[in-house]
Amino acid sequence: MKNVFGNSVTVTLFGESHGPEIGAVLDGLPSGIPVDEAYIAERLRLRRPAGAISTARQEADPFRIVSGVFDGKTTGTPLAILIPNGDVRSRDYTFGPARPGHADYTGHVRYNGCEDYRGGGHFSGRITAALTAAGAVLMYALERKGILIGTHVARCAGISDAPFSGNPAEDLKRLNSSDFAVLDEAKGAEMRAAIEKAAAEGDSVGGVLETLVLGMPAGAGEPWFDTAEGELAHALFSIPAVKGVEFGDGFALADMMGSEANDPLVLKDGQIVSATNRSGGINGGITNGMPILFRCAVKPTPSIRKEQRTVDMAKNRETTISVPGRHDPAIVHRARAVADSVTAIVLADLLSQRGLL
Amino acid sequence: MKNVFGNSVTVTLFGESHGPEIGAVLDGLPSGIPVDEAYIAERLRLRRPAGAISTARQEADPFRIVSGVFDGKTTGTPLAILIPNGDVRSRDYTFGPARPGHADYTGHVRYNGCEDYRGGGHFSGRITAALTAAGAVLMYALERKGILIGTHVARCAGISDAPFSGNPAEDLKRLNSSDFAVLDEAKGAEMRAAIEKAAAEGDSVGGVLETLVLGMPAGAGEPWFDTAEGELAHALFSIPAVKGVEFGDGFALADMMGSEANDPLVLKDGQIVSATNRSGGINGGITNGMPILFRCAVKPTPSIRKEQRTVDMAKNRETTISVPGRHDPAIVHRARAVADSVTAIVLADLLSQRGLL
Amino acid sequence: MKNVFGNSVTVTLFGESHGPEIGAVLDGLPSGIPVDEAYIAERLRLRRPAGAISTARQEADPFRIVSGVFDGKTTGTPLAILIPNGDVRSRDYTFGPARPGHADYTGHVRYNGCEDYRGGGHFSGRITAALTAAGAVLMYALERKGILIGTHVARCAGISDAPFSGNPAEDLKRLNSSDFAVLDEAKGAEMRAAIEKAAAEGDSVGGVLETLVLGMPAGAGEPWFDTAEGELAHALFSIPAVKGVEFGDGFALADMMGSEANDPLVLKDGQIVSATNRSGGINGGITNGMPILFRCAVKPTPSIRKEQRTVDMAKNRETTISVPGRHDPAIVHRARAVADSVTAIVLADLLSQRGLL
Amino acid sequence: MKNVFGNSVTVTLFGESHGPEIGAVLDGLPSGIPVDEAYIAERLRLRRPAGAISTARQEADPFRIVSGVFDGKTTGTPLAILIPNGDVRSRDYTFGPARPGHADYTGHVRYNGCEDYRGGGHFSGRITAALTAAGAVLMYALERKGILIGTHVARCAGISDAPFSGNPAEDLKRLNSSDFAVLDEAKGAEMRAAIEKAAAEGDSVGGVLETLVLGMPAGAGEPWFDTAEGELAHALFSIPAVKGVEFGDGFALADMMGSEANDPLVLKDGQIVSATNRSGGINGGITNGMPILFRCAVKPTPSIRKEQRTVDMAKNRETTISVPGRHDPAIVHRARAVADSVTAIVLADLLSQRGLL
Repeated sequence: MKNVFGNSVTVTLFGESHGPEIGAVLDGLPSGIPVDEAYIAERLRLRRPAGAISTARQEADPFRIVSGVFDGKTTGTPLAILIPNGDVRSRDYTFGPARPGHADYTGHVRYNGCEDYRGGGHFSGRITAALTAAGAVLMYALERKGILIGTHVARCAGISDAPFSGNPAEDLKRLNSSDFAVLDEAKGAEMRAAIEKAAAEGDSVGGVLETLVLGMPAGAGEPWFDTAEGELAHALFSIPAVKGVEFGDGFALADMMGSEANDPLVLKDGQIVSATNRSGGINGGITNGMPILFRCAVKPTPSIRKEQRTVDMAKNRETTISVPGRHDPAIVHRARAVADSVTAIVLADLLSQRGLL
Repeated sequence: MKNVFGNSVTVTLFGESHGPEIGAVLDGLPSGIPVDEAYIAERLRLRRPAGAISTARQEADPFRIVSGVFDGKTTGTPLAILIPNGDVRSRDYTFGPARPGHADYTGHVRYNGCEDYRGGGHFSGRITAALTAAGAVLMYALERKGILIGTHVARCAGISDAPFSGNPAEDLKRLNSSDFAVLDEAKGAEMRAAIEKAAAEGDSVGGVLETLVLGMPAGAGEPWFDTAEGELAHALFSIPAVKGVEFGDGFALADMMGSEANDPLVLKDGQIVSATNRSGGINGGITNGMPILFRCAVKPTPSIRKEQRTVDMAKNRETTISVPGRHDPAIVHRARAVADSVTAIVLADLLSQRGLL
Repeated sequence: MKNVFGNSVTVTLFGESHGPEIGAVLDGLPSGIPVDEAYIAERLRLRRPAGAISTARQEADPFRIVSGVFDGKTTGTPLAILIPNGDVRSRDYTFGPARPGHADYTGHVRYNGCEDYRGGGHFSGRITAALTAAGAVLMYALERKGILIGTHVARCAGISDAPFSGNPAEDLKRLNSSDFAVLDEAKGAEMRAAIEKAAAEGDSVGGVLETLVLGMPAGAGEPWFDTAEGELAHALFSIPAVKGVEFGDGFALADMMGSEANDPLVLKDGQIVSATNRSGGINGGITNGMPILFRCAVKPTPSIRKEQRTVDMAKNRETTISVPGRHDPAIVHRARAVADSVTAIVLADLLSQRGLL
Repeated sequence: MKNVFGNSVTVTLFGESHGPEIGAVLDGLPSGIPVDEAYIAERLRLRRPAGAISTARQEADPFRIVSGVFDGKTTGTPLAILIPNGDVRSRDYTFGPARPGHADYTGHVRYNGCEDYRGGGHFSGRITAALTAAGAVLMYALERKGILIGTHVARCAGISDAPFSGNPAEDLKRLNSSDFAVLDEAKGAEMRAAIEKAAAEGDSVGGVLETLVLGMPAGAGEPWFDTAEGELAHALFSIPAVKGVEFGDGFALADMMGSEANDPLVLKDGQIVSATNRSGGINGGITNGMPILFRCAVKPTPSIRKEQRTVDMAKNRETTISVPGRHDPAIVHRARAVADSVTAIVLADLLSQRGLL
């Protein structure tokens, strides 16, 4: 289905970095969900570049919802969100040298030379603004059902943040009101310094995002193919630069013994829960009622000022490139808002399929 | 779509561990693909338990293709493969204590207590026999187009295999005729010893599978949602026990600088290729013509003899369990055949969507 | 999705007329639906050829359900039904002259000459046995929720049956236990005589099926694309020989004035109902709680003994054909069981999408 | 998938009659298709109300394409078309009496009272402007491949137009430049007079649309479910007021003998064609290379000034209604442009699935 994701709740994305507008259409929403435009605006703000550690491009993101909302609530018919592209400097881009690590070459092959190459076109991270806004509608709806989502920069430039604390609900609250989402502010300051240093060197850094979901009921997901992990991973790999996804203890589980990796089951207030959560809240593809926990590996931003070897596609000739334009020396701290929205979309879809949204 | 996967080429799975038959339906196949039953049988053999390091359950896997093949070639109409379940000892299973690390509890919630709990029912790894057979049809078809797939046990019980050599086509050939797929036989012997030791202790081990694909053309995949990574991960997380998927350098990319992580582009025989392959053959969600490389984290087999804490679901009471029955002390070496088949299905689907199958 | 139909409840079909087995996989079923094999067998019997007015091919239809049922109830995991093909005389068929009105030529083009041409292969009406069985599972489930489906031969060989009476529930009950489903038995006798006469002349006749659904709740369907009419028609056109579908007064509405065509709304026991039902129970694509009524035009069976002009595809030469083998001089009376099953599948899917199944 | 239609080429619709904008997203387009905005504008003009026989609402339809087009050609990424809603008089609408024949009541049930009821909201025929525009992109693309689509008002107010002539390509050309699409202008004048008479009486009329497609290649469609008829009908029933769809001779086939209904096959220039076209260009669900021909029954416009019985949903009380506001006394002549666009979308999808677009 290409640019459509979801089974019961779906999202369709469109737009290019340097086109007039980008947007998203949410379909399959229940009717009667309150839509809070201030909440959406705040989520867009958290995604927006800010300060020395982000691109200088100013993205005001004055979105408008043109359908699917009536009297402040979803009607249940498709909800379309549009975001105009302001502050576009197309003259910064010409077709020629492919930027290493970008989709310039693959997009050229995929679309037979007809791609809008300006600023990455449809591949641009700019499109995640529409994705973030669409997900915010669902994140807000899930919150009202007691399902809380939050993401921290678990690692950046080789520096690790603290893990979630014994009060994860409080952690999520703090992360969702924080411009640079870390659990340990001192570590956050180190990360920001490392990002600024990379920027000064014309280079970039990557990191790891860790997302926690509280309040997700047991019983969502399918045994095969549409597993909770499979659906989440499917969507998370759409976040530009994500190259790995792991649930619970993830790759670390590979080195454990079964007796260590299995989460013992116990009763708590008459409910079956697990004493540990190495599985990240999912067994056999289905949520088990424990917190959902996963991590996404985010590669360093590919656009860097440092000179790199590449090929000029216009001339089919080897050359070097120092990527011009305004770029982020890191996107991991911005991508967290996208990860939250993607998570909300997938979980809403899983719940909706079970009649639980 | 639940137990259906794919857009243009689809696979539907059905069956339970202790039902009469399991099966798969492949749809959207091109007509005229030769179907080699011996090839399929060999792929099933590679998945089958064997020797001291696997369950004692004998699975002969005498599959039959009941539709979609005529005169030895695909007709283009749905191809159904059925595999009877022999040697089933249902008396080994009764409803009660949930096995930690299994889907016993989540399946019970998901299906409102109507699940076939015998041997894991529809959640059983047994179902992967049908998945392996279906994928073998496509793996064979891809081979004939020069697209080669192979997987090795990159890590097991804390022991690492050698990486792919400078002659990866030869590596794949060797892996696909090897019962325990490693590139370094000495390491394989160490792994097997560790598996046997875990078995002797009533415990189990996990590992990491690394899959390599040669010959995949550039231009398959989509920028959003149906990215090559997203589609592969979606399906790979269906392999029981997989808890993480990473492409190229995966999580290691998170700690690199952009100048290090970006693959420089160069010309080779007039074609644009990358000098390194840290991205694992995919940029912007689209294959770039380089080898596709990814790793799956496989947790240790959850069924162990060692006593574990759990809850008896029939009595809603805490108890302990020592899982009875015949179980694998490791499945990572068997899952490699499943990973190959899943990869073949996803790549065939991506190619078919682009009219390239 | 080719041979898969449905969004939330899906059915996948496979098999060929002269292959070893045909089958269907139902997915997305709620768990806990009782499965009554005698009910399914009876629905298959109603579809089966019988007596002088049908093909002499004996189809015993000894189906088996190999997955998705445990303790007599659906588990909620995929339910696969297999039906072996007995009494196959493949020597009756060789590749050559295309049978007019059949898919011989289009199948040859569609599948690049790789089609299983014996007995129509995957295009054969034989496949509707699997479709009927799958639909019977859902028809039984709907009955238990008070949703009753039945179809009569409203017209055959130019002879019209009586319309539904003032006691439609009684009509449906009678139709569903009747081998030749008419509301006026005298008209049925005339139809059967006409069918026998056509058979004697080596010719065939067509007819119109009219399906009525009682008890379908209001609110199922979508405003665009997945309208209740669109979903039903989509599936109904899969019934071989159906060339037209109309809802309510259908084509007759085209000649009415608005004041005549509109169904006045009134209150009945506090519920909004319509005083007439010209819309066939659907407005704006959504069920309105009134009985659903539609008609399918069934063309005469294309396989006839009478000589017809055609082309020999093996020799690319014009020729004539007198279709050999055992054929039905009419299928409209058999197709009614298929129409019921297709209706059950579509309505179950529409209800499931709304969380109402 | 609710408001998404298609498998390979998809269209997503959004918007409400009285919202700020309506729109459509086309996905899965090949890259490099020229996009002619004047062509789209002309198709929108043909759909637009005009003169005494249509609503007085002025719809200027100043659409804008905000993505997916670069340098005048499709990029292959999602193409979004937006159309602002001008000239909206929301004060004409309040929630209360349901308009008979409309979706007022079913929409109220379907969306739990959260529907945007102004002017029919998302159910409004207004949304077909977006559908027409999206289809026009594909209709233009198909024309350039020699696939021509056209629709005439075959019947209106009981008056029949002439059938297609011996020069159907010329017929289509004329229809597509004609404001009131008939093959016999005298009959068209009669129809218009009948529409005006109905309008004067505060009533409305219906009709039948007949669509012809020339140049469609053989081999598109599937044997089951995604038959060419099923896919077309699925989408055509989205056109508001369509209550019946028939292919070729349709319902008339029900009364024929097989020897009469079967289209004899002959050779023409070495190609297999049929001597007659009673099947409407489709056999076994697959196009046969002959012209595709189908008819849609269009019920009379439900909004009429004449008093009708209904129920006030706000008060749950029986009442009468004389529908206020500006309404069409017929829509069949406007719906023809929608039918053409819907046909283009479906055929493009069928071709794309076969790699033929």
